[in-house]
Amino acid sequence: MKIYENPTLYIEIENSEIPWLKIFPQKSYKELSDCDDKTRDKLLKTMLIVEKEMIKYYQPKKINIAMFGNYLPHLHIHVMARFENDSFFPEPMWGKKQRDGKLDLPNFDKFIELLIKTLNNA
Amino acid sequence: MKIYENPTLYIEIENSEIPWLKIFPQKSYKELSDCDDKTRDKLLKTMLIVEKEMIKYYQPKKINIAMFGNYLPHLHIHVMARFENDSFFPEPMWGKKQRDGKLDLPNFDKFIELLIKTLNNA
Repeated sequence: MKIYENPTLYIEIENSEIPWLKIFPQKSYKELSDCDDKTRDKLLKTMLIVEKEMIKYYQPKKINIAMFGNYLPHLHIHVMARFENDSFFPEPMWGKKQRDGKLDLPNFDKFIELLIKTLNNA
Repeated sequence: MKIYENPTLYIEIENSEIPWLKIFPQKSYKELSDCDDKTRDKLLKTMLIVEKEMIKYYQPKKINIAMFGNYLPHLHIHVMARFENDSFFPEPMWGKKQRDGKLDLPNFDKFIELLIKTLNNA
């Protein structure tokens, strides 16, 4: 689900037990180094804003960031807030499941509302 | 094994069937957003140089980038060159093994030599 967009990029929610967003450039690139400088700067700045907002709102154990795109070579950045009792911690979300995660997190819709406000003011 | 360092950061080899490097800031930070601006810029610029050099030298199917640090919360950036016949493709290197990879890649030492030259000229 798309929650934000501007002329350079858009942000989607990944359906998961953890707060997990994906940042895509509007124009499709294979690799980060394929982007023009302006697009890359905006992607990385947005990645940092998402990270900082997740830290402020959720106080996660760790932020995880990934750019894979092996299935579909359309560059995108995963930003994930990780918690000690999520299903995979300390493994990456693509790793071996460690437990049935039991998370009691603050309201996600409220987080998205605050994030969009910050992005619009950035 | 450390193959490069400057006052801001150092680069280590991850022992793997694929070309895989890890970039660490000299000073320990938990998250990317904890770094001072200069350090973060240098880390991200170095990440891009490594990516571009891997693409030029190996012509991989895809570059994968990750910042996890869940086991040890010391920020570092993984940069990986991925190939269709590596053991995990199209899964991330932390995912489910797909096959016994059979890679016949150009010489890694030569790649490191070229990379160091490029980093020193950057």
